Amino acid sequence: MKITKTIDDIFHPRSIAVVGASQNPRSQGYQYLRFLLDYGYRGAIYPVNLTAMDILGILSYPSLKEIPGNVDYVICCINAALVRGLLEECFLKKVKAVHLFTAQLSETGDQKACLLEEEIKKDAQKLGIRLIGPNCMGIYNPRERIAFNHDLCMEPGSVGAIVQSGGLAGEIVRLAALRGVRFSKVVSYGNAVDLNETDFLEYFLWDKETKVILVYIEGTRNGRKLFKVLRRAAKIKPVIILKGGRSRAGIKSVASHTASMAGSIDTWQVVFRQTKVVQANTLNELIDLAAAFYFLPPITGKRVGIVGGGGGKSVLASDEYEEAGLEVIPIPEDIVKFLESKNPKITGWLCNPIDASILATLNLKSVDILRCMAESPEFDLLSVNTSEDSLFPGDLWVEFIEGDANGCMMVRKEGLKPIVAVVGNPEIGVSQTANWRWQTLSRLREQLTGEGVPVFSSPGRAAVAISKLVDYYQYWKEAGDE
Amino acid sequence: MKITKTIDDIFHPRSIAVVGASQNPRSQGYQYLRFLLDYGYRGAIYPVNLTAMDILGILSYPSLKEIPGNVDYVICCINAALVRGLLEECFLKKVKAVHLFTAQLSETGDQKACLLEEEIKKDAQKLGIRLIGPNCMGIYNPRERIAFNHDLCMEPGSVGAIVQSGGLAGEIVRLAALRGVRFSKVVSYGNAVDLNETDFLEYFLWDKETKVILVYIEGTRNGRKLFKVLRRAAKIKPVIILKGGRSRAGIKSVASHTASMAGSIDTWQVVFRQTKVVQANTLNELIDLAAAFYFLPPITGKRVGIVGGGGGKSVLASDEYEEAGLEVIPIPEDIVKFLESKNPKITGWLCNPIDASILATLNLKSVDILRCMAESPEFDLLSVNTSEDSLFPGDLWVEFIEGDANGCMMVRKEGLKPIVAVVGNPEIGVSQTANWRWQTLSRLREQLTGEGVPVFSSPGRAAVAISKLVDYYQYWKEAGDE
Repeated sequence: MKITKTIDDIFHPRSIAVVGASQNPRSQGYQYLRFLLDYGYRGAIYPVNLTAMDILGILSYPSLKEIPGNVDYVICCINAALVRGLLEECFLKKVKAVHLFTAQLSETGDQKACLLEEEIKKDAQKLGIRLIGPNCMGIYNPRERIAFNHDLCMEPGSVGAIVQSGGLAGEIVRLAALRGVRFSKVVSYGNAVDLNETDFLEYFLWDKETKVILVYIEGTRNGRKLFKVLRRAAKIKPVIILKGGRSRAGIKSVASHTASMAGSIDTWQVVFRQTKVVQANTLNELIDLAAAFYFLPPITGKRVGIVGGGGGKSVLASDEYEEAGLEVIPIPEDIVKFLESKNPKITGWLCNPIDASILATLNLKSVDILRCMAESPEFDLLSVNTSEDSLFPGDLWVEFIEGDANGCMMVRKEGLKPIVAVVGNPEIGVSQTANWRWQTLSRLREQLTGEGVPVFSSPGRAAVAISKLVDYYQYWKEAGDE
Repeated sequence: MKITKTIDDIFHPRSIAVVGASQNPRSQGYQYLRFLLDYGYRGAIYPVNLTAMDILGILSYPSLKEIPGNVDYVICCINAALVRGLLEECFLKKVKAVHLFTAQLSETGDQKACLLEEEIKKDAQKLGIRLIGPNCMGIYNPRERIAFNHDLCMEPGSVGAIVQSGGLAGEIVRLAALRGVRFSKVVSYGNAVDLNETDFLEYFLWDKETKVILVYIEGTRNGRKLFKVLRRAAKIKPVIILKGGRSRAGIKSVASHTASMAGSIDTWQVVFRQTKVVQANTLNELIDLAAAFYFLPPITGKRVGIVGGGGGKSVLASDEYEEAGLEVIPIPEDIVKFLESKNPKITGWLCNPIDASILATLNLKSVDILRCMAESPEFDLLSVNTSEDSLFPGDLWVEFIEGDANGCMMVRKEGLKPIVAVVGNPEIGVSQTANWRWQTLSRLREQLTGEGVPVFSSPGRAAVAISKLVDYYQYWKEAGDE
């Protein structure tokens, strides 16, 4: 069977058995069952447990073979020593795919565990069963209401993610959801004895529901194959990769985490450059890039116009945008002339960013200047610094900062120009949650995101994400022009 | 008079006149009066307004000379054209210092405004009046209950800040306060026609209430003098500098913000290196460094032990710590042996970071392993990754993450080893504020901070701040040893 079809079936099982389902909330056998129930998975659910009659109100079976219906997909939460026996049962039950949550295999470095992992791999091959894992969280498909962690957003979107780490898979979905990003499907694939990053990459490239691909990878067993698919990949959809295990200590951690050979980061970086993969350096940057690629159109120029915020904030924004490779160009002549007609004294003072003091002098609101800049062909995109640093108390402060946000949303709604917003994200303590200032920032962040404006927590983070996005689209535009 | 005495008087005025005080909440004349009243400044407060009888319930005077008592300090919020007249009045009233909030002078680039600024400077010199500004927010001294913005913390501490930008001055105090940092005094000094960065630096070096100095600087009029003081400064107290105006666009913004000559960033960087100033690259990094220097002792080694969080998080932490120049050393032999006695299978698996899965296998809590590592002379400091990425729902999740935080606080309380915590700071929308997960993170952040543990929002941000702190103390230790 084609790998794309195999994996598509895995993401759309009509029935799921949780082997090692349990009444103990501290076990993942309990948690996986709860995920299926809590999120409302619509297929058949079969807990498998040697002794329990029912778990969480669902009729339980002592073994796979007792299950009356077909089983498409097995989530395996039992001890590693029992996996080979289970695979035999799966074969008899005609199960096509098994997700091995089961861990403590090769990642422990223990020789026996490594051998066992190798035998599990061989058994599955022989029996024609596809494996996800071991040592991973498996699949998340909001359209099917299948998930691998609590509190995950069930609204589907167009970002696919291939995540070697289980904990990070949940974090990526959760953190990106706060930024307005929605996912098509996600897989956490751990030690990757069978299905691996390259297989899932093939799948997401083929999958029509996926427009952007995120990858967290620690290592690979077949670099050549991965390289080949990556080279094809970035032409089809943007692929954003965060590589774990770049340093000496990181490489050691990788071994004890997913038993992967992390490889030299120099080699990886050559591969990323040659394949035009977008590289993220931190988890936060991965999420920033997801938000940028999710919300922004293919921008192919780097001339940015910046509005709002105080003078110091504007200076730092200029620095951070330019240092990230964007062009903070002078205000175009026709806009200067128009603004001079409002206040002739402005000539020497006016610059990009147009900060809050200059706006006040011109008696202009953010929305007016943004419209003006959005209509100019000189700018490739706009960025708004919300004026959090304004000196006014409560009500007046809200008026200014809402003005900035409204300007953003107007430009976005009318589709005048790609636009991003910078709204700070201070480290608020619980006693400050209700404070009007921080509440307003949270409200505007959510409102902007809801209107399709990507929101970043600092000018520097916005700038790095945008710059990498433009690099990506510029490259493919130029490649297409040739 | 010595500059230190002059500035100390400015930070401790017994009476303040707000010239241009106003009943209009959109004017800074109104706001400065409110700051004094809201925060409870205990000295005499004199609003000065040509026509009003009283403002905010305080008897108002038509001019300085009508004020019955002495006036130590004037906050000037009137139009630039009226400043020279005010200085004459100040001379007659024996006012020693004037803070010019008044702006639209040289920063506008307008020739007349530049000339006026020059004349204001000369007048003040001739009349023996010291000026702060123009185009700035003036002073913040929580011990005197004087402030230049709303919602600033009134609990005093030991960080002094010299901030050329008014908006950033408020932001720095507010953002640092959320991180547990408290200030001795802060000045926002704008165009710096008289008192400038070097004067304030001299003051904070001398000031016993100040242990760490933060600086946001856009430019200087006397680089040689600044260099001389900086060279002396870093030996006495850590000086952390964020330089605004590093890029082409940033340099232009600086001119239109504080009319400063930003100078070449290469020159500045040579100065920073030669003077052992700690350089911050972003506002967030400045706040991170403030938290690090505020809470941590003088650490002179870079061997870090990391605990907690899932496998992927641990891999990324290793990378980010090592990339920042810290040493994520292997677990020391004696600790390995001790842990093997609990679970002999751990040998090949165990590594630094000790992640949540490994802890679970050992049946150890964070607090146990942390005590063990804290007692080892092999580590110079410890870092805890709170296990936000744990797979469990509400109650169990809270149990794990609280365990991590308790471990941190134990080490801190018992003074076993310098320790930092990493608690993520997702961009929460207002509808998510009450969510148990984000509430818990806010609660733990506040609790840890309250116990003197510096909290960072990502491993990378922690690592950069710590590494720069160790560089600073290592240098002075070695210099002292010679």
